[in-house]
Order: sequence, then structure tokens, then C-alpha cells
Amino acid sequence: MKGTDMQVAIVLYPGFTSLDVIGPYEVLGRLPDTEVVFVAEEPGLVVNDLKSLSINVVATFDDVAEPDVVLVGGGPGQVRQMSSERLLEWLRTVDRTSKWTTAVCTGTFLLAAAGLLEGRRATTHWGALDGLADFGVTPSKERVVIDGHYATGAGVSAGIDMALTLAGLIAGDDVAQAVQLIIEYAPEPPYSAGSVDSAPAAVVERAWKEMSA
Amino acid sequence: MKGTDMQVAIVLYPGFTSLDVIGPYEVLGRLPDTEVVFVAEEPGLVVNDLKSLSINVVATFDDVAEPDVVLVGGGPGQVRQMSSERLLEWLRTVDRTSKWTTAVCTGTFLLAAAGLLEGRRATTHWGALDGLADFGVTPSKERVVIDGHYATGAGVSAGIDMALTLAGLIAGDDVAQAVQLIIEYAPEPPYSAGSVDSAPAAVVERAWKEMSA
Repeated sequence: MKGTDMQVAIVLYPGFTSLDVIGPYEVLGRLPDTEVVFVAEEPGLVVNDLKSLSINVVATFDDVAEPDVVLVGGGPGQVRQMSSERLLEWLRTVDRTSKWTTAVCTGTFLLAAAGLLEGRRATTHWGALDGLADFGVTPSKERVVIDGHYATGAGVSAGIDMALTLAGLIAGDDVAQAVQLIIEYAPEPPYSAGSVDSAPAAVVERAWKEMSA
Repeated sequence: MKGTDMQVAIVLYPGFTSLDVIGPYEVLGRLPDTEVVFVAEEPGLVVNDLKSLSINVVATFDDVAEPDVVLVGGGPGQVRQMSSERLLEWLRTVDRTSKWTTAVCTGTFLLAAAGLLEGRRATTHWGALDGLADFGVTPSKERVVIDGHYATGAGVSAGIDMALTLAGLIAGDDVAQAVQLIIEYAPEPPYSAGSVDSAPAAVVERAWKEMSA
């Protein structure tokens, strides 16, 4: 299956959050001799949480047997995937040979549900963090957590930081820094409301409402 | 065509850079009563620069006549689009009624080629910045530039900062901050190599080589 030195498999499912996966994709897809394959339970169009983005997936779980890196993003659709034995079994299987098994945002819960993170530290979206403990995982408020060969990132945009960290571990600091420069990742958010600790209380309340709508 | 208060049209073309468009999409798609439509010259699958991502586009330029916000991303495919009279003419037309005409990365050159930025300040990817002057545009090293109803962002990941800035102007600071919190955009890059001024010289050289490969 692999025509390159490294294969990165990114899992998609209906109701995924696009930046969760595209942030890391843009980073990992630029590593030397690396092939990225989007993978889903069935081939065809996979529609995101906002319903306006459709990604065409060719590879199914059967087609991707030994990826070097596995990445699972989050999004509202993650809840339904928690009972997809097909996905969870695939995660357990590929994890046996993967160099890195990774998740962004609530994708962490899929690794947790597969039993892969038991006794480990991990992070996820701030709104869901406490729930990790239900799976025997120690929740961390860090933006990126590396524990063994597991890497997890906090909510949505944290996947970029997670992937750059991983890029450094996989390909070295020079390569990771060149990728950072190519994607001009020198962030200047116009507000400092990106974490629950820095956002004004009214903004946290509004975000909660939006997320539970 | 519009079922919502605000329509955002995001242009796709073969060889687009995915994060250029998905970053802003994740932000603008979360604004209240907003519909996002991906639009291309032809309906069907549009493949990105790295060749591993296919987005299915339903709407063509004919279907999107009066978007409130227009966004054009960059990527290697932008060069070919510079001579697409169909795209340039559509940009000129929708710009007449748009509230905001915007670009990320080398997408700025498409607005410039359409003649929309003449006499204005704009930004683009650091590797292409000087070239804006050829179109009568004043290049700015700022990450986000607002000039009239034009908003431009620097390379790739800068689209997130551009879109959050725009979100604040469109929907107010509270809404923009809530979106920032929902996507947990409190960046912590593991390196400070994201701009040509902060990156080590060897990293800049490596990035140039990668970009011209």
C-alpha cells in the first residue's frame, strides 16, 4: 500500500470538524516522503459538522492496514462513532504497529473508547476535558500532550500545534520549522479569548450555549 | 439563493492549499445565520496542492451571484488561475455588491489580477509579497490588512487571524471571541519559526527550496 517512507492516515466520519483534521494535514502532509490518506468506514463523500463541506474519501479501513501515523479529529459526529465497533477495532489494530497514534479535540475520546489511553495523560477540547477520566485517562489542560506513542491536542486549532510538535519528533526540528514557515504560522489572534482561562465570563457562557445548541 | 442573513462564498480551484480556506471557513462558518458555499468554475471534485484532499463542490460561479463575503485562498494552483478570465470576471462582479472581498496567502494575487486592489494596501504569503507591487498594490508585512472592504491575510495559517478579525467587524467582538473559544484558538507553536523575520536563516533557506521544488 505504501509508496513512501511514511504513511499518515486521517480518519473522517460524518459530522467531523474540518479544522481538527485539516490543520494537522497541512503540517504532516508537508513532511518529506510522506503520503497522507483520508480513511473512512465507507468510501464516498463525508460531510462535516457545519454541513457545507464534503470531502471525498477513497480508502476504507480495510485499505489502510499499517499506517505510521494515525490521526482522529473531533466534532459533534464523534459521539456517534463512540459505538462504532468497526472504527474502534481498526484503531486498536493499527495502534499495534503505528509509530504515533494521535487525536485532536474530541477525537481523543475515540482513542479512549478504544481503550488505548488507559492510565495515560491526554488532552481534548476544553468543554469535554473532565469526561476523559471516565475512560481511565488523566485529563491534562496542556495544549499538546505526548505520552508514549500517543499525541493529543486540545480543541480544533490545537491540532496545528500538535502536528508541529509531532513533525519535530518525526523529522527533526529543522524540517518542522521549515513547515511552520511555509504555512507562515506566526499567529496573531485579534483577541485573547482562545482559552477558557483567558476568555471573559460572558464569552465562555456564549460559547457553551453555541456548543450545546 | 440565500436562506440565511449572510452568505460566504469560498472559491476553490485545482491546486489550492487547504488550510488557506479551511481556517477561515471554520471561523466564518460559525457566525450566526451564516451560510457558507464553496464555489468553483465547474462542479465536482477539486483536488488540492498536496493531491491527497478532494473537496466536492456543487455550486459554480453562475450559482453564486451576490455573496456577502467572498474569500479566495492561495496555493500553487493560483498561478494558473491568474489567466482564468471566468474567475477574474466573477470576482469583479461579486465585488460590486459584496460587503467584504477577502483573500488569504497568494489568493491576494487573484484579487490583484482582477484589478480590485489597485492603490490599496494588502498582504500575502511572505515568499510572494514583493510581487504585489506589479499590480499597483502596496505590499504590507502585516499579518492581516483591512483596506476599504478588502481584507487580506498573510500565508496559509494567517487566514484564521484574518477571519477572526473579520468576524469581529461583521458580528461584533463578543461573537468573534466566542468563535475563538469554540475553536480553542490560543496558539502555542512549539517553535518561533513562523515568520521570515523570526526563523533561523537555514530554516528560511530550506523553506525556499521546498516552495520552489
